[in-house]
Amino acid sequence: MALNIAIDRSSETPLYLQISRALRELILSGGLLEGLHLPPERRLAQDLGVNRSTVLAAYRELKSEGLLDARVGRGTAVAPRRGTAPRAVTATSAPQLPWHQLARPTAAKAEDPLLRDLLELTERRDAISLSIGLPAPEHLPLRELHEIERELFAEVGAAVLQHSPTEGITPFRETLGQHMATRGAACSAPEVMVTSGSQQAIDLVARAFLEPGDAVAVEAPSFFGALQVFRAAGARLLGVPADEQGMRTDLLESLLQRQRPKLIYTLPTFQNPAGHVMSLERRRHLLDLAYRFQVPVLEDDPYSDLRYDGAALPSVKALDGHGHVIYVSSFSKALFPGLRIGWIAAPRPVIRRLALAKQSVDLHSSTLGQWLIDRFVRQGGLERHLRTVRAAYAKRRDAMLEALKAQALPGVTYVRPDGGFYFWCRLPETVAPARLLSRAAEERVSFLPGTPFFCEETGQNHVRLSFSGATPRRIREGIARFARAFAAASSRGARGGEADVIGTAPIV
Amino acid sequence: MALNIAIDRSSETPLYLQISRALRELILSGGLLEGLHLPPERRLAQDLGVNRSTVLAAYRELKSEGLLDARVGRGTAVAPRRGTAPRAVTATSAPQLPWHQLARPTAAKAEDPLLRDLLELTERRDAISLSIGLPAPEHLPLRELHEIERELFAEVGAAVLQHSPTEGITPFRETLGQHMATRGAACSAPEVMVTSGSQQAIDLVARAFLEPGDAVAVEAPSFFGALQVFRAAGARLLGVPADEQGMRTDLLESLLQRQRPKLIYTLPTFQNPAGHVMSLERRRHLLDLAYRFQVPVLEDDPYSDLRYDGAALPSVKALDGHGHVIYVSSFSKALFPGLRIGWIAAPRPVIRRLALAKQSVDLHSSTLGQWLIDRFVRQGGLERHLRTVRAAYAKRRDAMLEALKAQALPGVTYVRPDGGFYFWCRLPETVAPARLLSRAAEERVSFLPGTPFFCEETGQNHVRLSFSGATPRRIREGIARFARAFAAASSRGARGGEADVIGTAPIV
Repeated sequence: MALNIAIDRSSETPLYLQISRALRELILSGGLLEGLHLPPERRLAQDLGVNRSTVLAAYRELKSEGLLDARVGRGTAVAPRRGTAPRAVTATSAPQLPWHQLARPTAAKAEDPLLRDLLELTERRDAISLSIGLPAPEHLPLRELHEIERELFAEVGAAVLQHSPTEGITPFRETLGQHMATRGAACSAPEVMVTSGSQQAIDLVARAFLEPGDAVAVEAPSFFGALQVFRAAGARLLGVPADEQGMRTDLLESLLQRQRPKLIYTLPTFQNPAGHVMSLERRRHLLDLAYRFQVPVLEDDPYSDLRYDGAALPSVKALDGHGHVIYVSSFSKALFPGLRIGWIAAPRPVIRRLALAKQSVDLHSSTLGQWLIDRFVRQGGLERHLRTVRAAYAKRRDAMLEALKAQALPGVTYVRPDGGFYFWCRLPETVAPARLLSRAAEERVSFLPGTPFFCEETGQNHVRLSFSGATPRRIREGIARFARAFAAASSRGARGGEADVIGTAPIV
Repeated sequence: MALNIAIDRSSETPLYLQISRALRELILSGGLLEGLHLPPERRLAQDLGVNRSTVLAAYRELKSEGLLDARVGRGTAVAPRRGTAPRAVTATSAPQLPWHQLARPTAAKAEDPLLRDLLELTERRDAISLSIGLPAPEHLPLRELHEIERELFAEVGAAVLQHSPTEGITPFRETLGQHMATRGAACSAPEVMVTSGSQQAIDLVARAFLEPGDAVAVEAPSFFGALQVFRAAGARLLGVPADEQGMRTDLLESLLQRQRPKLIYTLPTFQNPAGHVMSLERRRHLLDLAYRFQVPVLEDDPYSDLRYDGAALPSVKALDGHGHVIYVSSFSKALFPGLRIGWIAAPRPVIRRLALAKQSVDLHSSTLGQWLIDRFVRQGGLERHLRTVRAAYAKRRDAMLEALKAQALPGVTYVRPDGGFYFWCRLPETVAPARLLSRAAEERVSFLPGTPFFCEETGQNHVRLSFSGATPRRIREGIARFARAFAAASSRGARGGEADVIGTAPIV
């Protein structure tokens, strides 16, 4: 083999150093692979027109750095990289670091890997997933996005791949402010900021406002991703029971009197997991309480664009006359989650505070993602897309409803949701939750158990079934598999028991 | 105007409720804009074929919700949304929330808005920016990316816009593991995770391992974005002086003995801001110390691909035989920052811990961004791109060097960097830093003052000048403007003083 080494005889750098440098660069850049044999010193010297001792000195230096290996009779080869990388420093007494002891104890408390485990499933294709709330892949607007990207590269140019402001690019913040009109709460660009999904929005609020030991009032059940954020911040979670009208604000009132939470977290519209919509009266009561006790409300609203029946209610933010509401939402459900774009609408002092938190967390959200969604919304793409997917999800919801009815699982109750992605099913006590999970895995259908949605160790007798990501045919097959797992996990006494009770979400 | 209201006479829902629901939805969705006048009751009743009292009841309901306004003689109109949104709840005694009092005190301590302010500049086009380290916009591979996206949409499909694993998509983690070979430290996919830029990588490490009061050893000066993360985590910063060979590991040793930091943070290659490269000997000494004192090393390496002269040194990670190094890097400098894609290479227990932190921070990084960069790297695009930009940046560095030489600013010293994006200049004491900044603003040239790079209130007599983002012509003009600001900010005694001293980075 011929080595591509340039030698500069006019340089003040000794020739052997020029050679060793060139070889080092080739080795470290991967140009010379591990195990590759180098030419014998004599031949390389000839090729380069230098003395053999020059090459010898260069090889010797690289050997001393661990980059080359030489064995008698086997010549000189590029040394292995991994583990024994370039003369790895080996202090004889250096043990492995005890990483677990080094970790922050408060971080360890919030260590439930549920979100991570769920996201790992996105790369598996073998089971029917009724677990994670994924948008229907069939309807993602790939072609439109690609065309918008072409326009952006031509019109805006390189700026769409560069750094951008922490709060988001200005045109997109304006678009989002106008988009808030669909929630009855249009606002100006400075009252909006872009986040890397609504998960980050919730985390930023926790970072900016929660200290270890603070209490947060949450619906019981509530979104486990938010519960995990609050736990990671060291907060105490106070569960407020909810019914078909949403959070029981009468119970919240007594809790506010006794416990003085620092924040009230609510998902008023198509709640995750329960699917209910908080009534207008309770929305007003919630705000009354927030004003009276001077507690901010964090309104999480990823699903309100996905209503299949009935008319929209104003968001809690729309009803707020005193700037007590921090509103967060996301394009992860209505559009697609892969660009990680969400937003916060809040009073300006809150936006300022949250931007200061975000700057050191990830500088800013994807510039390209913001430009893409901004154009898509401005061109009316979101409205068109929502019309398509609302019809599709309504069919999927109905398919799951029919399948659940057809299976007539004894003792199982649920409510038909008017929007969102989920059926929240209560199971009879005669079903063993762990057995249900393991049997479902054998049947290759996945769902979410109820426990992670509660702040206490309850909810074992609930499951959340998502209907958004699978076709009606797959949903029917998935529910059939679920029914088989259910039967196998039921104790004898329950077989042929009560008929199923089906509620219907109240129409508002 | 004709209102598009569908009435279902077979429904059990009263007609007035059907009408009010339809109107509410139109208003909240923005279909009926603020101030728009609705048809008089009589006419709408006629259009819909219902009694006038039915329309009256529907309008009355919407008025009570604050969605409609009616004034005698002016008809019925859609009510204004902002502030007085749908019958905003107004508790008479409700004051504005004292958001500043509600904020977490430790967050307030780390409140320097520098990163945010710098990123805001990305939307301004009026000045010559020598401040933020932006890749050259002229060389961003827009066309290649667009073509790769087309391939991905055709071959991979909707999955590129869906959720993906917290640690990153598997093919990209494999690519990154191989890419680590260019750092002399190839590794397997489970030893790598994707982050939303290296800023997030540093923040995740702080979240997982630092508690308030913990000490972190950093170079003095060091990257202010990292200092801000450590401050936000409540850590104490211990500055270790650095010279042209990088961190003074002899001084680190005595610091380790006295202060027991929880982490050593280093930018060994083309350090930001100082531009130096830590020598091989010090890299080994650093690891020896890390082993002896059992302290993890956080190696931040965004610039090593951007070497314009001399040969590469192995990364600290490559020299680490005992898994003490957490390595972070990013595509924000070598490629583009707008997709927010960086990575961490570390022992598996560390990756597991950091993934648990990341799941509740933003679930995962942009799926599309990962696919785009993965293909780009696999197709050899990164290598080609690096060849182009290395040549371009070398020219820009030389242009800045020549411009600085030509201006011959009295008492200013600097070192020619072999790579990276920055000149780090020491100014004479005769220059007033605040005056320099304000004069530079008048001259419409921006740079970074030295203070934010130090953990103590020092560094006033330094500036960082970035040469990456401007063309050679703009660099010359920028340095000319800087020189005018410099002259205006110099006290008389300094005029015509010492000649400038130009060092050269030692060639390794």
